Amino acid sequence: MAHVFSVVGLNHGHIYGQVKGLLDTGKWKLKHLFAEEDDLREAFVKRYPDVIVAEHVDQVLEDGEVELIASASINAHRGPLAVQALRAGKHFFVDKPCVTTLEQMEEIKVAVEETGLKWFAFFGEMLTHVGVKWVRQELEKGNLGEPVHFMGLGPHTLRIGGRPDWLFDRALHGGILNDIASHQIAQFCYWMMQDPIPQFSRVGNLHHPQKPEFEDFGDATLMGSKGATGYIRADWFTPEGLPAFGDIRQQLITTDTYIEHRKTIDIGDPDGGRGGKLIVTRMDKGPEVIDLSDTPMTFFDDLTDDVENGTETAIAFDLGYKASKAILEMQRDAVRLGPLEE
Amino acid sequence: MAHVFSVVGLNHGHIYGQVKGLLDTGKWKLKHLFAEEDDLREAFVKRYPDVIVAEHVDQVLEDGEVELIASASINAHRGPLAVQALRAGKHFFVDKPCVTTLEQMEEIKVAVEETGLKWFAFFGEMLTHVGVKWVRQELEKGNLGEPVHFMGLGPHTLRIGGRPDWLFDRALHGGILNDIASHQIAQFCYWMMQDPIPQFSRVGNLHHPQKPEFEDFGDATLMGSKGATGYIRADWFTPEGLPAFGDIRQQLITTDTYIEHRKTIDIGDPDGGRGGKLIVTRMDKGPEVIDLSDTPMTFFDDLTDDVENGTETAIAFDLGYKASKAILEMQRDAVRLGPLEE
Repeated sequence: MAHVFSVVGLNHGHIYGQVKGLLDTGKWKLKHLFAEEDDLREAFVKRYPDVIVAEHVDQVLEDGEVELIASASINAHRGPLAVQALRAGKHFFVDKPCVTTLEQMEEIKVAVEETGLKWFAFFGEMLTHVGVKWVRQELEKGNLGEPVHFMGLGPHTLRIGGRPDWLFDRALHGGILNDIASHQIAQFCYWMMQDPIPQFSRVGNLHHPQKPEFEDFGDATLMGSKGATGYIRADWFTPEGLPAFGDIRQQLITTDTYIEHRKTIDIGDPDGGRGGKLIVTRMDKGPEVIDLSDTPMTFFDDLTDDVENGTETAIAFDLGYKASKAILEMQRDAVRLGPLEE
Repeated sequence: MAHVFSVVGLNHGHIYGQVKGLLDTGKWKLKHLFAEEDDLREAFVKRYPDVIVAEHVDQVLEDGEVELIASASINAHRGPLAVQALRAGKHFFVDKPCVTTLEQMEEIKVAVEETGLKWFAFFGEMLTHVGVKWVRQELEKGNLGEPVHFMGLGPHTLRIGGRPDWLFDRALHGGILNDIASHQIAQFCYWMMQDPIPQFSRVGNLHHPQKPEFEDFGDATLMGSKGATGYIRADWFTPEGLPAFGDIRQQLITTDTYIEHRKTIDIGDPDGGRGGKLIVTRMDKGPEVIDLSDTPMTFFDDLTDDVENGTETAIAFDLGYKASKAILEMQRDAVRLGPLEE
């Protein structure tokens, strides 16, 4: 028997990955779509013509058949929607950033505790790249030393003309660190297996005066609760010539191993467009590209198992909660940078 | 007619690069060596059997034929030796880090101003890689946009058993940022063409309790005086399996270009051992590896010209001065990190 889910909010294209991932498990059936924007709704219906277009979000929330709501609504709406969904008895599967305020995150925590339902934070850069899980598993087995330093780089191409207005509205968007560096902080938590402690952060609009509330650069240093260190950066300066949305990159330094994950592309490799290059250097062995071509990405099956069995294998609530809180604190406490001097 | 130089201090192997570079110009003759350590002196004499072994440093300082002193002495001795050399009428060519205290740097500035002699700061990672100068020249021509962000990574292999005691003596060594991240701050100054302003830095001994004064990790965020941003990191955790002393890496993000310089090795490339891969991505063009195989490294010829003509083409005094001061401030003001929890 198929599980049933509905979609609320199409404001980021990530929703297509969320929907496809659920459907590809063969265990989920898509029921409704609710989206306020005509153009986004029409595009979705074209792709999934059998979906029921809901007139109001309540039509989804009140449908007893719907077990899970998947959402990539406007950033600032994701937190309130999560609470609504959970209180209506639905699991909630949300694109990152999951929230834009600390209050939203705390309300979700209460709702999850009181309902016993699942809140799945979709940190796609972490959850859909099999190399990330491989590293974590090898760390757990003791094969990669103890974590010393994590660096996570999340540069993005802007293509400013094609972006919706809410991206440039500070309150609706929530800021660059919270939006795109949330991927990095989540992966810090996942690999380092310690809680993130913000140290110093900065954000600013360095070169886009036409969008005064926009932040085109942000970075932050942090510690882990067991003494590891971290640095994360996000920016919107990637040139449009790059054949990827950004050169997403992580480094992990441990007490005896050096790892780099060139996730979306290897810019130095003529065949680099395929991305996913995980490079491991050890004390007794030079750089080795780990072949994970036969390793399946299990996130959506894990999510389904978690819905069925109450387990927590896809993404731990605690990770999404702590990562979201830490990045919100970094965003809130960031030094504000002015424009470049011309 | 050949210029004459002598060597004082062999405490870092960089001195061999300094000597070879001078001799390879065909314009310099090596006269004396003064070094306190028998083993280091013997190894040098084996390589350069015609060198005069000085009994005392004064023998070098008082020799009117000697125009320049090259040194890679113990870090803390380099500043005082610079002042001695300049006051004795010699140009001074010093390995990085050039100084270990702000006072030393100010004394050198006064001595340079008063003597009119040259003080050449040898930031080898910057000065001997032709890609660095290519980027600077392209920036000056306006071909690479305006600098937004610089990231400089200086990881190193420790091989702790083969290191001299002074490396683990805080006062003699001067700290990890000043020692090995000084390369990065110098290159920040060179590429960004703005003065460095420290923001947040941290150093610590995370995993080498047997050397209590040692710092195995350090990083820092900084601004440029025209609003650009920077992040630099140094560490001693590179696994010995890496076929290079470290994976030295810089990224430069500008308003329209994304550059990465894989200086010593490209760990993702089976043929990566050659290093020197400069990758440029532009608005209208995907990642391009710039071929600089025919571009000569001119640093030692430039240095010789500067000695002959009083020009400043090899390395600007102002750059070495400002970079040294900034990294010393970052080192002094760094948050101290404790050991990893085991």
